[in-house]
Amino acid sequence: MASEIQKNLVEKNAEYAGAFDKGHLALPPAKKYLVVTCMDARIDPAAAFGISLGDAHVIRNAGASAKDAQRSIVISEQLLGTREIILVKHTGCGMLTFTNEDAHALVKQNLGPTAAAELATLDFLPFPELDAAVKADVEFLKKSATVPDDVAISGWVYEVETGKVRQVV
Amino acid sequence: MASEIQKNLVEKNAEYAGAFDKGHLALPPAKKYLVVTCMDARIDPAAAFGISLGDAHVIRNAGASAKDAQRSIVISEQLLGTREIILVKHTGCGMLTFTNEDAHALVKQNLGPTAAAELATLDFLPFPELDAAVKADVEFLKKSATVPDDVAISGWVYEVETGKVRQVV
Repeated sequence: MASEIQKNLVEKNAEYAGAFDKGHLALPPAKKYLVVTCMDARIDPAAAFGISLGDAHVIRNAGASAKDAQRSIVISEQLLGTREIILVKHTGCGMLTFTNEDAHALVKQNLGPTAAAELATLDFLPFPELDAAVKADVEFLKKSATVPDDVAISGWVYEVETGKVRQVV
Repeated sequence: MASEIQKNLVEKNAEYAGAFDKGHLALPPAKKYLVVTCMDARIDPAAAFGISLGDAHVIRNAGASAKDAQRSIVISEQLLGTREIILVKHTGCGMLTFTNEDAHALVKQNLGPTAAAELATLDFLPFPELDAAVKADVEFLKKSATVPDDVAISGWVYEVETGKVRQVV
């Protein structure tokens, strides 16, 4: 039986598809850029960052981690031709609220030893300070041999309280 | 100097922030679910899947890979209380168009031996068949000790040609 969440998906998608007129868009992003941002429920990248359908890849993970996004970034650039990276972390991020030790302890307590073993070597990639984390991720990308030197990289903070972005680096 | 893409971000964000009235939303997703979908430029998850701001985590990577999303999924469930997973791959996905060998050869040719060495052990996670890949990812999540048995998991395909979703599993 469909859950309420699945029913919502089907109903809202029927409305969306009924008015859909973008079936002609090509696979490679038209504006040749990619955005890395957080999975946070309070961020709507298309609306908040002005991304029109078809223009950019949008990669999202816990904390907008550049390291975690590396596979997707390489595919975006090498196979689909993107040439600019916009990285956006945000205020009030969950990743500011715990340590790796906290997360591993929670997994062991809630999910048991099998799950703890499956995740034993995992870095949850939390960070203690927001602007410093943006700078560190941009630095990681700039230093990585997997990102060509002519790819423009900038780092930003989105404020979930105001809807505003500000550039960090 | 700001790029055209950075200028677009600043300008469109100023409009968004000017009309923003959602600064009160809480960190944990209100509807306690997460969506895993592809970074593809032709997908707007909020609009196409009916996700209101604040309701769900949205994880996006190349191919909507559940394996690649594991860190984010564990954080979403264990630290932020989500209880349902909606996984959506899509027609025309770039991940249907290459193999791991292709990607590694391309990295070596375009980026050189240092980058190739940095990515030597990376699985790019391409897949040859769409519906089978959706089923395999749902199976991966259901079997993983890191996802509790009472988390509902469903797998879907989004058609970039029509804007429609259909449930696979």
